[in-house]
Amino acid sequence: MSTSNLDALFKPKSIAIVGVSTKGGRGQLGGNSYLNSMIEMGFKGKLYPVNPKGGEIQGLPVYSRLTEIPGTVDFVISAIPASGAIQLMKDCIVKSVKAVHFFTSGFSELRQQEGIDMERELLRLAREHGIRIVGPNCMGVYCPGSGVSFLADVEKESGGTGVICQSGGNAMYVAREAARRGVRFSKVVSYGNASDVNETDLMEYMADDPETTIIMAYIEGVKDGPAFKRALERAARKKPVIVLKVGVTESGALAAASHTGSLAGADKVWDGLLEQVNAVRVDTIEEWIDMAVAFTFFPTPPGRRVALLGLGGGATVLAGDEASKEGLIISPFPDELRQRMSALLGSEAGTIINNPMDLSAEAWTIGYYPILKAFSEYDGIDVTIVHISMGLIARPPETHAQIWTKLIDDIVQAHTDFGKPVVVAIQMMTFPEHYLWMVQAREKCYRAGIAVFNSIRHAARSGNRLLRYNERLEAHGEAND
Amino acid sequence: MSTSNLDALFKPKSIAIVGVSTKGGRGQLGGNSYLNSMIEMGFKGKLYPVNPKGGEIQGLPVYSRLTEIPGTVDFVISAIPASGAIQLMKDCIVKSVKAVHFFTSGFSELRQQEGIDMERELLRLAREHGIRIVGPNCMGVYCPGSGVSFLADVEKESGGTGVICQSGGNAMYVAREAARRGVRFSKVVSYGNASDVNETDLMEYMADDPETTIIMAYIEGVKDGPAFKRALERAARKKPVIVLKVGVTESGALAAASHTGSLAGADKVWDGLLEQVNAVRVDTIEEWIDMAVAFTFFPTPPGRRVALLGLGGGATVLAGDEASKEGLIISPFPDELRQRMSALLGSEAGTIINNPMDLSAEAWTIGYYPILKAFSEYDGIDVTIVHISMGLIARPPETHAQIWTKLIDDIVQAHTDFGKPVVVAIQMMTFPEHYLWMVQAREKCYRAGIAVFNSIRHAARSGNRLLRYNERLEAHGEAND
Repeated sequence: MSTSNLDALFKPKSIAIVGVSTKGGRGQLGGNSYLNSMIEMGFKGKLYPVNPKGGEIQGLPVYSRLTEIPGTVDFVISAIPASGAIQLMKDCIVKSVKAVHFFTSGFSELRQQEGIDMERELLRLAREHGIRIVGPNCMGVYCPGSGVSFLADVEKESGGTGVICQSGGNAMYVAREAARRGVRFSKVVSYGNASDVNETDLMEYMADDPETTIIMAYIEGVKDGPAFKRALERAARKKPVIVLKVGVTESGALAAASHTGSLAGADKVWDGLLEQVNAVRVDTIEEWIDMAVAFTFFPTPPGRRVALLGLGGGATVLAGDEASKEGLIISPFPDELRQRMSALLGSEAGTIINNPMDLSAEAWTIGYYPILKAFSEYDGIDVTIVHISMGLIARPPETHAQIWTKLIDDIVQAHTDFGKPVVVAIQMMTFPEHYLWMVQAREKCYRAGIAVFNSIRHAARSGNRLLRYNERLEAHGEAND
Repeated sequence: MSTSNLDALFKPKSIAIVGVSTKGGRGQLGGNSYLNSMIEMGFKGKLYPVNPKGGEIQGLPVYSRLTEIPGTVDFVISAIPASGAIQLMKDCIVKSVKAVHFFTSGFSELRQQEGIDMERELLRLAREHGIRIVGPNCMGVYCPGSGVSFLADVEKESGGTGVICQSGGNAMYVAREAARRGVRFSKVVSYGNASDVNETDLMEYMADDPETTIIMAYIEGVKDGPAFKRALERAARKKPVIVLKVGVTESGALAAASHTGSLAGADKVWDGLLEQVNAVRVDTIEEWIDMAVAFTFFPTPPGRRVALLGLGGGATVLAGDEASKEGLIISPFPDELRQRMSALLGSEAGTIINNPMDLSAEAWTIGYYPILKAFSEYDGIDVTIVHISMGLIARPPETHAQIWTKLIDDIVQAHTDFGKPVVVAIQMMTFPEHYLWMVQAREKCYRAGIAVFNSIRHAARSGNRLLRYNERLEAHGEAND
């Protein structure tokens, strides 16, 4: 089956949302939240809410049945109970619908014959008439470019990251959280039970999609191993693919089976496969986002030689350990650089001019700008990682934000002025205000083109993975020459 | 040298703070912040601010010199420049001071002869007159029971955790952050250059201190390996010792040398030593706090058989993987428990009654209380880990806090009513409100006697370490029988 007709999921001209309630509040999950999300996200096509009782919602007429809608319907979102799904599919056939997303659960994931049979019948009808099914039992599609969205509170700006995520919850989380670190999306798809559209279709589609430059895949299990392997291999040759394979333990696999009826597959097989095709494997959802951040901000990765800069002696020792453990190179500064910085910092500063560098007391007076300037003019540093370690300063809490804001502004300015790669790790929050500040500071950084991580460890690990990805890519390119 | 005279650091009857400024604002780090901290934290003894210019500060007369103070002075905190330190020590001798803390830096950590000589002379004078020195180049002491404190914004309530932390920044961070997860402190000491009072003295003191039941040690390096080993071994026989050994890489060791002049020692030697004495080794500052949380809330560890409960299919799969990888046992529920829960949850819920358990849709209607009740009555579960995975729900953001608050209240109530161990992991925050809610929810949990972690992974890793600690302790006990 061709994947070209998946376009109807992402760029439909019209959407019918079946199962809205004219009484339901905004707190209800279901048809109304889809309708509200499309309106909020600026969907430009036609929106047709459907409910047998008719009426009006959000100023739109509610149609009593799909077949009552006057115009063509490209895409249907179903939020009605499973028992009505077959009839709805028959109506979809009548309306020549291109794709249906069943948010509705109660099918094969219950592992009872009735649900399994219903899902099979839906698929049979759909295949017979060339209709694509997303789900059932999933959140569906978020495509900011067209305003198709499963949430109203996600980023409106488009970008290059495509997400293949069986789980709806994790798809929503990544859409929200990665955006707060500067990742922008082409398409995000939660595909649940994968009765029709599955990880292989989506991998093929994302591989060919010119709007997608980075692929994130969260995989609970695959329907067809060899087909998925071919799709993954082809995708990974064209663009970075970041894979979070879950269900890798007996317990996780059991949960995956109840969640989406997936068979998880052996962990070591996945390790081998992902290594072989040069897809980047990650271990946690945070690392999954980290790698999207890394590929977004470093399309051409800098080298492995880092300078570490921060405030706090203990935090600096930890930074050195963590970046080293993750495979980065932290070389001592040469005499010329040390002398230059010594002049900047005054005579007592001798010992702090090391790599990693603790700019404790001096941070208040000279800030980070002149240090980053000196680093930018020394070609033995590929990238500087600055840590903002919030909860370890002795000043009264009300001055914390002021202090850190000055340092972030310095980093942003230096990055703008010198163009040398800088990465920021914001960590060790303690006061509630720290968290609010962190959320704002992350935005300030990514808007200036700076990648932000939640710790030195995460920054370094992602940097190392990015570099290894690139080294393999080059080795592979040479092997093919 | 006996450690008994360290009492003067923690329970002095009078403190002189040398180097206050009658002009300095609250934003200044130094003498004034120490003075303000003691007042704020309710220090009951006498406080004598000292500055050559005299005057008055916080309603207290400022003495022009230590020797001008009329009464006895047990403990002196020095925040004057290094150049005045020798004269101050001579004044301390005149006043028969018991201990001096040099917040002041500019000594051996600069690795220049002048500073090294000054530090050596201070030590010579101190030893000759039985005066103990903390530092120089450190934050000093926080002892909430007596109101001695290096910060004004830390917890006033006392507890059983003693912290030995060379780094001032990390000492402040742990004092602030661990307290927000329910850890309470007997004594926290940042001892910087360790010219006199060092890790060995503090380990001996904490081992014998009846107020200290858990010891946290952050070690950059040790002055005397064999002596430290003896102290550690003795302490670990008496109470849990959690060790964060840093400077374990070349880069971290270099930073430690500049920070406190420490020689870090080989990582493998530390691994062997800590294993041998059954101290708990951790890898990050977060894990260091995690273990203090674990020992605080589980003086007698429950077993390894866990139930995992949460909301969100994908989050549940991840929870299963993470808890399994960290060595916990997640066994399927027996039929009896499944049937009982099936009755609670209704007929469609068949597949969700697994371990790990995803209570997605049902969470809104029945909540966690009846589930935790059923768990509490089944003796095949030692402990339940509940994850609150915030950013993955589809409801509009303004309802998030409401939803999660209901679930936290259920957990707290169930824990109170049934007394079965519950652990909470609050994770996957996305909106700024999530962070603020998290800070409050953690307090609600720990006040009800519930341990809180930042992820399932951290909860499970800490649980596993706690259990391994206990298994070794028992094996050791039996070997000694």
